Amino acid sequence: MEARKLILTGDRPTGNLHLGHYIGVLKSRVEQQYTHNQYILVADVQALTDYYETPQRVVENSLEVVKDYLAVGIDPQISTILIQSQIPAIAELTIYYMNLVSVSRLERNPTVKNEIAQKGLGKTLPIGFLNYPVSQAADITAFGGELVSGGEDQIPMIEQTNEIVRKFNRMYNTNCLKEASIYLSKVPRLVGIDGKAKASKSLNNAIFLSDPPEVIKEKVFAMFTDANHLKVSDPGMVDGNVVFTYLDAFCEDKDEIDSLKLKYQKGGLGDATLKSLLNDLLQNMLQPIREKRRLLSREYILDVCYDGTSRARKVSEVILNDVRNAIGINFFNKVKK
Amino acid sequence: MEARKLILTGDRPTGNLHLGHYIGVLKSRVEQQYTHNQYILVADVQALTDYYETPQRVVENSLEVVKDYLAVGIDPQISTILIQSQIPAIAELTIYYMNLVSVSRLERNPTVKNEIAQKGLGKTLPIGFLNYPVSQAADITAFGGELVSGGEDQIPMIEQTNEIVRKFNRMYNTNCLKEASIYLSKVPRLVGIDGKAKASKSLNNAIFLSDPPEVIKEKVFAMFTDANHLKVSDPGMVDGNVVFTYLDAFCEDKDEIDSLKLKYQKGGLGDATLKSLLNDLLQNMLQPIREKRRLLSREYILDVCYDGTSRARKVSEVILNDVRNAIGINFFNKVKK
Repeated sequence: MEARKLILTGDRPTGNLHLGHYIGVLKSRVEQQYTHNQYILVADVQALTDYYETPQRVVENSLEVVKDYLAVGIDPQISTILIQSQIPAIAELTIYYMNLVSVSRLERNPTVKNEIAQKGLGKTLPIGFLNYPVSQAADITAFGGELVSGGEDQIPMIEQTNEIVRKFNRMYNTNCLKEASIYLSKVPRLVGIDGKAKASKSLNNAIFLSDPPEVIKEKVFAMFTDANHLKVSDPGMVDGNVVFTYLDAFCEDKDEIDSLKLKYQKGGLGDATLKSLLNDLLQNMLQPIREKRRLLSREYILDVCYDGTSRARKVSEVILNDVRNAIGINFFNKVKK
Repeated sequence: MEARKLILTGDRPTGNLHLGHYIGVLKSRVEQQYTHNQYILVADVQALTDYYETPQRVVENSLEVVKDYLAVGIDPQISTILIQSQIPAIAELTIYYMNLVSVSRLERNPTVKNEIAQKGLGKTLPIGFLNYPVSQAADITAFGGELVSGGEDQIPMIEQTNEIVRKFNRMYNTNCLKEASIYLSKVPRLVGIDGKAKASKSLNNAIFLSDPPEVIKEKVFAMFTDANHLKVSDPGMVDGNVVFTYLDAFCEDKDEIDSLKLKYQKGGLGDATLKSLLNDLLQNMLQPIREKRRLLSREYILDVCYDGTSRARKVSEVILNDVRNAIGINFFNKVKK
């Protein structure tokens, strides 16, 4: 039997997870855990590069995100859920890698460039932020990640990681670091309830896994449909209609969707009826997730994090030791332990 | 009895120590160890930011430098000698501090600016090098350094450290980090044997504590004296005469120096005689240091490093724990240990 490949995935704990995550990464992770050796990194240190002024929120969000993982079916016995800040090897690897990457190389990184432009940071950006691709290389290599699960925006990060890996291995004449590949998840992007952009916390246009029933209903009824569909008898547009987008994403019965679409396009299906259908569907889908969330105590979540982090820490320490041996700075290895 | 102040000092292990170090920092450290709680940091990780391609040299130099310390009279029972790479807390502190310092602030640091210009690095400089003042802030704070021993060039580094300390304490509403002050050592700069610049390894104009007798003699006889002092009977210049500079620095008998100077200025004292005098003096001074060096085994040096580093590591872990508590990311503290 071939060993399962180690796949790394994770989230910056900057808020609860929503339906966009559910249809995308969360469902993939539930499947991947049976085919891969899956590590799910709660990247709290990375979140602190942005939210260093509100660390308490980062900690709370970390625990909430893990709650979401368990509620959707990620099994902490199979997947390794770990808290980044509790893995000291990542910091040490980052420091060593920082000698191998130039400032100009980092300034050319598309993700960094983009974020700097978006946030209007310019030269006021903290060095911790500029260094983010190096930290991510440490995250990936700390556990010997062979695959990194993510979208196309992750590709430049993996390229940077592999540059470091090759440079390190060549310089120190070793093969202790492994290159990683992208594992492009077929992540359908879910549009927000306003239909304008993808669902996101910051745009306040997402339905969260933790939303109570009345909030879900409110959000469904606020969804953008077709601005010209005023009366029930009017013919309506299906394209760009958020309710249908969500039905396509979450309703298993494709025949039913098709007949609804026909009816809507002809005229005779009101938005309120349509939204009620979607509301029922989402309520049924989210109710057990929310119920499971409710049953998960803070103590249990901390236990899960502790166990996963302890397993991951052991793996990372073996790799850090290899790296230090390769550089040749394990002073005391031969003397005593 | 008041507690002794913690003073931090140290070296980048880029080569053996020479007479310039001896007359300057080494003698101060031998005295300071009886009045302060002295930590001597062998900054191997910092040396790696320049010498990452030849780590083995950094390791060997680290052990040689410690040998020099012990040979001149630093007592490892009183002073804490520690190897930077063996203190993981420094890497973690560095990562947290990196969020508090902007790229432009680092680019304005005079030491960084200077080194970039000297090495012609421009934008190809590694981010590890740009980040050097942040790493140094971690070095200083990791042990609660109250005083940092050094020359005026250290002042901008301590300012950067104190900026981080104030920002951290204010942001996380704590006082767990302490500001540090410079402890300006009255370090007379020793000129090189060529008389052109200060003694340094890279200029190959220094006499090393580890130099064998014949090399010392050779270097003394190669010293610059007075280009116009051709015959013994010629009057000679004392100012700018390297032999007299070294006599001033190392000869205890000030009356003898004065009479030698007079004789030299009048004419009648040859360079060879003068150099023989200095040679005898340095041979007598360096012989016991070299002898002590010879008796120190590699195993003993490693033991000394291990003991000092272990003591320092405990101190650094308490401080790192305070820092993590202040940020609020000690997830598992209340759960289990």
